[in-house]
Amino acid sequence: MGHFVIKSDHIITPDGEIAGFLEVNNGKITAIHHEYAGEYIDHSEHSIMPGFIDIHIHGWGRGSFAYKGTVDSLRHMSEDLPKVGVTSYLPTSGTMPNDFLESSLQAAAEHIAEYHPEMGAEPVGVHMEGPYINPEYLGLQREDSIQQPSIEGFERFNALSGDNVRLMTLAPEVEGSLDLIRHMRSKGVTASAGHTAATFDQITEAIEAGLNHFTHAFSGMRGFHHRELGVVGALMYHQDVYAEVAKQTGITIRHEAFDILYRLKKDRRLVMMTDCMGYADFPDGYEFYHYLRKETFNVKGGQLFLTHDDGTVKQVNPCCYKEVEGLEMNFLESVRAVVDRLDYGLCSVARIASENPATLAGVADRKGRLEAGKDADILVLDQELQLLDVYCNGVKQAL
Amino acid sequence: MGHFVIKSDHIITPDGEIAGFLEVNNGKITAIHHEYAGEYIDHSEHSIMPGFIDIHIHGWGRGSFAYKGTVDSLRHMSEDLPKVGVTSYLPTSGTMPNDFLESSLQAAAEHIAEYHPEMGAEPVGVHMEGPYINPEYLGLQREDSIQQPSIEGFERFNALSGDNVRLMTLAPEVEGSLDLIRHMRSKGVTASAGHTAATFDQITEAIEAGLNHFTHAFSGMRGFHHRELGVVGALMYHQDVYAEVAKQTGITIRHEAFDILYRLKKDRRLVMMTDCMGYADFPDGYEFYHYLRKETFNVKGGQLFLTHDDGTVKQVNPCCYKEVEGLEMNFLESVRAVVDRLDYGLCSVARIASENPATLAGVADRKGRLEAGKDADILVLDQELQLLDVYCNGVKQAL
Repeated sequence: MGHFVIKSDHIITPDGEIAGFLEVNNGKITAIHHEYAGEYIDHSEHSIMPGFIDIHIHGWGRGSFAYKGTVDSLRHMSEDLPKVGVTSYLPTSGTMPNDFLESSLQAAAEHIAEYHPEMGAEPVGVHMEGPYINPEYLGLQREDSIQQPSIEGFERFNALSGDNVRLMTLAPEVEGSLDLIRHMRSKGVTASAGHTAATFDQITEAIEAGLNHFTHAFSGMRGFHHRELGVVGALMYHQDVYAEVAKQTGITIRHEAFDILYRLKKDRRLVMMTDCMGYADFPDGYEFYHYLRKETFNVKGGQLFLTHDDGTVKQVNPCCYKEVEGLEMNFLESVRAVVDRLDYGLCSVARIASENPATLAGVADRKGRLEAGKDADILVLDQELQLLDVYCNGVKQAL
Repeated sequence: MGHFVIKSDHIITPDGEIAGFLEVNNGKITAIHHEYAGEYIDHSEHSIMPGFIDIHIHGWGRGSFAYKGTVDSLRHMSEDLPKVGVTSYLPTSGTMPNDFLESSLQAAAEHIAEYHPEMGAEPVGVHMEGPYINPEYLGLQREDSIQQPSIEGFERFNALSGDNVRLMTLAPEVEGSLDLIRHMRSKGVTASAGHTAATFDQITEAIEAGLNHFTHAFSGMRGFHHRELGVVGALMYHQDVYAEVAKQTGITIRHEAFDILYRLKKDRRLVMMTDCMGYADFPDGYEFYHYLRKETFNVKGGQLFLTHDDGTVKQVNPCCYKEVEGLEMNFLESVRAVVDRLDYGLCSVARIASENPATLAGVADRKGRLEAGKDADILVLDQELQLLDVYCNGVKQAL
């Protein structure tokens, strides 16, 4: 954890781009100087910005927390995420059988406790997607693993995670959800609407109870109608509530749907995330069909097979990052896909990919902005938005 | 057509509120003076603003152009509209049997030709809602009267109307529509999407052909989905295309849906209208069921009967304006319902209820703003937005 200074004419802050010298000491940003007389790393031509914070990521690269649920899965995720600009994240569970879910949460507790910056991206807590969801909007979740919302259930999960649940996706209309939302609010845990058939009025009630986020906007929720605005209408209407969008492939949601949401939410309340799965780390023998990609994923004999509906089969070595990195659009690619659609380019990205997710993950006091006092989670990017350097808590990562 | 001057500290223009003396001469606004030494009518405390222009109105008060289709219907509409702040309008036909439609258009030609300001609100052209629509989104239109779009058909209608068709609502995805849109565009006639199952891409293509308005936003059109954005997604996305909303009862569309649309369209591209029917002037024996109001309207023996689904029956004398005025929410009431939801109060109203509809009706050169050179279509309102005086082309109307 040394001391270093980076000079850049393009230090990206949510309030604009500045020129200066960013000083790091023991993993923290200690100052941004206008002038600096000592030694520095010269990135004058490059942009430096806060690392991305992915608050909705089931797996990435060689690790899948949601499907394998082991400490090793998390170690792989932490190691592979800086390569795509993510410096901290919420490992995100799915709606899975209770035993699996509980052991996953224990694994998360263990990895969060063991984490040090040399391991890569920092796991700053857990996002639980379910199990308190509505089967009417199941998406890729498992119907057999849905549970009834309760404060006791949440507290059991949270205890297993080492008190690290920072965000929960739930269906506010299901009995018991509103009490749980109030409880989470009182603990500073973010409640987010997702996989939900709620009406507009039910969402409004949930917001009054403390809900302040929408999981994968537009997907897995009651659609918009002008007399029953549904969850989609609620997320469009309620300006102070955050909404997240998954990696912008244009497949899950059309780019124009992203644009509509962005015009309504602006930099203040939009959040980018990837919802990546980490297919390479699926359990051996597990078969998974993705209805949008029209592909079946399964791991057999230590190899990952992708079988497309059209019959083509692709084989991948799940242990090799270079082989698996192209399986899903990553956070950095998603940023490249939207940056020209945003009002203020990279400054907008710094809001929707760093500061806003830091707020929802409950770590805005130490992450999400390049400013004195914050963790030194830093990306150095060239003009084509290729990563040159990535620092997690002041430690330079292998790319 | 005399000369008069109105003093007000609240002259509403789309660019803001000003204090001054508005001078009228021979039906035209000739100047707004900062100081004026001659005689004036003192409305210092009152707001004066441009009269409302209703571009989508089938009937009002004692007249129904769409359902009776006679010159007398139009005379009644012209006479009764100033009482609710409307100083000019596009009588709007429905998708009706061809013979009826053609004779209606001839009646419109006759009334437009005979019009003089003592008759009331000015009919500045005709809006044809159909017959080139898609039966998938029929709403209150008649399926048996839908026709195939064609330039020849349009020109036949237009000739019957005395070359007065100013706006046509059509389904752009129906074969023949795109050519017709191009034709209308070349003639300066507004093409508007309504009663349409078009996809987002079909609407985008139609906009390239010249479509620049959406009829009763959200209603009678393919809804929003994040992978197929539909007509609703297209009207949200395409910022330079106008969209109109009907009287804001909160029934047809929820107030929150209005707010979402307003945030996307702003004063620049939103249009208010009423879509009023003029039930009192329905043909004798005609029965009409309104599925949102859950009421059946029919005229028997010179009396109008409203039978609600719950069995209650209301009887109204269709010849008495005071008895019929409450049958539908009127333009002024609709303004009162939304004014506090708009960015700039009455100044926003002056855009969405006067200037924008003037543009779409093709009369922006002479109507829609209080400024020198424009027709003296003027409303005087007290602070509770009660009408004190209404002028159509400089002639004070009976309220």
